[in-house]
Amino acid sequence: MVCRLLEGKKGLIFGALNDLSIAWKVAERAVDEGALVVLSNTPMALRMGETHKLAEKLNTIVIPADATSVDDINELLSKTMDYFGGKIDFILHSIGMSPNVRKSKHYSDLDYGYLNKTLDVSAISFHKVIQSARKMDAINEWGSILGLSYVAAQRTFYGYNDMADAKALLESIGRSFGYIYGREKNVRINTISQSPTPTTAGQGVKGFDNLLDFSERMSPLGNATADECADYCLTMFSDYTRKVTMQNLFHDGGFSSMGMSLQAMQQYNKSFEYDKEHPFD
Amino acid sequence: MVCRLLEGKKGLIFGALNDLSIAWKVAERAVDEGALVVLSNTPMALRMGETHKLAEKLNTIVIPADATSVDDINELLSKTMDYFGGKIDFILHSIGMSPNVRKSKHYSDLDYGYLNKTLDVSAISFHKVIQSARKMDAINEWGSILGLSYVAAQRTFYGYNDMADAKALLESIGRSFGYIYGREKNVRINTISQSPTPTTAGQGVKGFDNLLDFSERMSPLGNATADECADYCLTMFSDYTRKVTMQNLFHDGGFSSMGMSLQAMQQYNKSFEYDKEHPFD
Amino acid sequence: MVCRLLEGKKGLIFGALNDLSIAWKVAERAVDEGALVVLSNTPMALRMGETHKLAEKLNTIVIPADATSVDDINELLSKTMDYFGGKIDFILHSIGMSPNVRKSKHYSDLDYGYLNKTLDVSAISFHKVIQSARKMDAINEWGSILGLSYVAAQRTFYGYNDMADAKALLESIGRSFGYIYGREKNVRINTISQSPTPTTAGQGVKGFDNLLDFSERMSPLGNATADECADYCLTMFSDYTRKVTMQNLFHDGGFSSMGMSLQAMQQYNKSFEYDKEHPFD
Amino acid sequence: MVCRLLEGKKGLIFGALNDLSIAWKVAERAVDEGALVVLSNTPMALRMGETHKLAEKLNTIVIPADATSVDDINELLSKTMDYFGGKIDFILHSIGMSPNVRKSKHYSDLDYGYLNKTLDVSAISFHKVIQSARKMDAINEWGSILGLSYVAAQRTFYGYNDMADAKALLESIGRSFGYIYGREKNVRINTISQSPTPTTAGQGVKGFDNLLDFSERMSPLGNATADECADYCLTMFSDYTRKVTMQNLFHDGGFSSMGMSLQAMQQYNKSFEYDKEHPFD
Repeated sequence: MVCRLLEGKKGLIFGALNDLSIAWKVAERAVDEGALVVLSNTPMALRMGETHKLAEKLNTIVIPADATSVDDINELLSKTMDYFGGKIDFILHSIGMSPNVRKSKHYSDLDYGYLNKTLDVSAISFHKVIQSARKMDAINEWGSILGLSYVAAQRTFYGYNDMADAKALLESIGRSFGYIYGREKNVRINTISQSPTPTTAGQGVKGFDNLLDFSERMSPLGNATADECADYCLTMFSDYTRKVTMQNLFHDGGFSSMGMSLQAMQQYNKSFEYDKEHPFD
Repeated sequence: MVCRLLEGKKGLIFGALNDLSIAWKVAERAVDEGALVVLSNTPMALRMGETHKLAEKLNTIVIPADATSVDDINELLSKTMDYFGGKIDFILHSIGMSPNVRKSKHYSDLDYGYLNKTLDVSAISFHKVIQSARKMDAINEWGSILGLSYVAAQRTFYGYNDMADAKALLESIGRSFGYIYGREKNVRINTISQSPTPTTAGQGVKGFDNLLDFSERMSPLGNATADECADYCLTMFSDYTRKVTMQNLFHDGGFSSMGMSLQAMQQYNKSFEYDKEHPFD
Repeated sequence: MVCRLLEGKKGLIFGALNDLSIAWKVAERAVDEGALVVLSNTPMALRMGETHKLAEKLNTIVIPADATSVDDINELLSKTMDYFGGKIDFILHSIGMSPNVRKSKHYSDLDYGYLNKTLDVSAISFHKVIQSARKMDAINEWGSILGLSYVAAQRTFYGYNDMADAKALLESIGRSFGYIYGREKNVRINTISQSPTPTTAGQGVKGFDNLLDFSERMSPLGNATADECADYCLTMFSDYTRKVTMQNLFHDGGFSSMGMSLQAMQQYNKSFEYDKEHPFD
Repeated sequence: MVCRLLEGKKGLIFGALNDLSIAWKVAERAVDEGALVVLSNTPMALRMGETHKLAEKLNTIVIPADATSVDDINELLSKTMDYFGGKIDFILHSIGMSPNVRKSKHYSDLDYGYLNKTLDVSAISFHKVIQSARKMDAINEWGSILGLSYVAAQRTFYGYNDMADAKALLESIGRSFGYIYGREKNVRINTISQSPTPTTAGQGVKGFDNLLDFSERMSPLGNATADECADYCLTMFSDYTRKVTMQNLFHDGGFSSMGMSLQAMQQYNKSFEYDKEHPFD
């Protein structure tokens, strides 16, 4: 389905690593829908990933930037506006990383240097991008900014570690800055709390596949895919949602509003059959 | 802005009384966006309001129905499908009324017969419409159902009376049935929690104008209008939001995420100046 | 542990059926802690249950009342004050029943007469008790009223049926009336959202035992028992919590803040082993 | 009211600066209720405040510690256990400070070095204390840990600045660690979200007095005082609340569940009278 939802809009998209990335899908779909986009990623991600391939496909540019560096962000925003010949209409912040998760530091044995890194990369970078954009007046009136979150910001998932705290911080930053940028320039800021998604980042989470299964069975519509998330992001960038701001929007097939589904319980119940058959486990 | 977002979709819309109604705007905009719609309202509302005028304008029909009557709903759904020559893709439930509010019965002096009526009209009718639709298999796979709510479901507003409880019930019904209809037919059910809106119903609430002012100053984007609400509803009926279900979505310019804005506080502060100038009030 | 937390206080307790009931435990513990209590239940519950035995043990009286009848409530409150020789300090509303659940009517095939009964018994009775108490000025300044709820008011649990909607309504009534009774008489109204509890009522819910197991493994502290719930209720009746009102307080070992625990996931994972061993199921 | 609620318990209390401090009141009341306490604060706070006076009054010791330093915390916990001759039963974390607020850096012009400091002092210190305590096995089974929060973690208050984000992070840490410490040692972790309180810290917030007035009029029971907060903390440290964990508990006279009170609106309405009388302002 394509209806030129973003005709004439210009967007800056962080975090398209490869074709599993939500940001990748958003970039593709935004262009389908009539938008111009600029892609950005860290130099390391650009080496490891395929962002340049996407840029080629979408006939656009990639601007390297470390989103924890205010200097990098300033330069990125400046170049992006040069490229567009004008201000930006929407920004997708799809950035997250925890060295504690990567190095298998348990939440009860966090390295605090790593924690600072987790928060800086995954949450404070959101503030930095917005603060710089506002100072440079880089976003058009009624522009739209999105961050990507996960329900772990509200409820604890074992193994998600300090990313849960980073997501809580990210959502709070969205609200805090949403107030200020909204009252001044009618720029809205929201986060989308997406189903667990088998991106390169998602797959790094411990026990991810089984969590995915549980989440699938708990959600009446099943887990939301990266493609579906992209479609939802488009509506939030479009002019149809101008008065939605400071919200955390669940895009998860219903998971966040479920306590227990029949399907998940039926699967769970089989575990008791297993226990009966393996009494000495 | 029109991009044929609902091309080919068919919708049933309850509650378009006059051109202040959110449902009225939704009907108009849905047709703009390529949908066919059928309008429904109670016989009394049809006499008092201008639904027929809207039907004429949109070149469609009005089917009278009391949404608290299962028989009426069944007949309505049946006639709607006849008219469409097929199943329904989306439903808007914009129905609410409290005899306690109308008769100025205070929340601490409720008439329980009236309370039943409030709940039946404003919340249980949502269940009745969905239950009938599901029994008749009247909704297409991936269909979308919306109810309209207000933040009073979460926080108490003086004067909103038993409508607050009705909205809490409405939102709960959305979740409960969203689970069932989702797992079976991928039909999603959500409520939109809209800014106070100067519709005929809204204006019936005590102290409405001043509340509107407060809400306007508290919301960084200002209150959302009926027109803007219509646009948002369209995205929820479209195929871009297929995995959003069982949610209560705030469409309120940020109000629900505000504790205190500078603008509202500045206005509030003037009241102290007033007090100083009128020490004997 | 006993420290005379409720020394000199007088409480009215609804819903003590037998020694599995939360209300039973609350009554026992309240008396331990220095309170006088009066017990109330419906005439039918009084025949089927053992409330009179509890009254004897606690050296108090039972006053029959149907909490959906305003007349009964008025008489109950009047007799209770006579018995106490004064006003009431706290009320526990532990009342809930769904004819739809009892008669195995699925949520997508509700009987609406039954639904009215569910709401009336399980939620509106809360309003009726409070409205009558306020009209009779039956509660002391800084009194405390509690209702019992379940997390199904926020998230859908298959099989919990229209009780979920009733609990959402109950919690809303707590907020709505908490505002009014608070501003006038400093009476606080809260609901406690308790773990699934193997009371006579709880055990009526479909698949209750397996839900109990899941809930136990999800909750870091395990499910909260009826005894523990009683202790928590006491704090809410005591003078230590005077400024807590209009809240829904989770007493659930952490369940409500969990997305997935290691323990629940480990059990869930066994189901996949079962599937491997029974590929043709 | 004193009923020896904490008889025999041992607690560590951070943040008692002077007799306006919530921590000061908690320490006093905990001792009333039969607990032994140890006080801790930063060396600078010890110079500026009156913690030593409190220690003298309560016949206990003060152990200086910078709660952002893991070494300091380790030493503090070790000395505390030495003093108690055993493990700790409860901890109050009442620590918060924002250099951005102090230096009047606007939220849209944050100094990121200051932001790191805000988060480290006001939120990450909570993690550090808990992580150290757990590593040293310093807390008794069924121990209780509390942090102090504010509703700004959920809703934006102009002027509260990056403290809002710090509180969101603090609450998330409470949940995340509550899961781990709960499942292992039945230690519960909660945050109390307190009314705005005229402590030395609170009074540093811009426009605090007028916010206090608004909050007072919005809350049916009025703002909760530091003394009342202390009482509530006691219940959370006591054995009556053993199964409450991972919660953020509002202790605010109902504010968090209010949308608009009559009293606040009546005051607000006077501002329009002021406007009428001063049309040229």
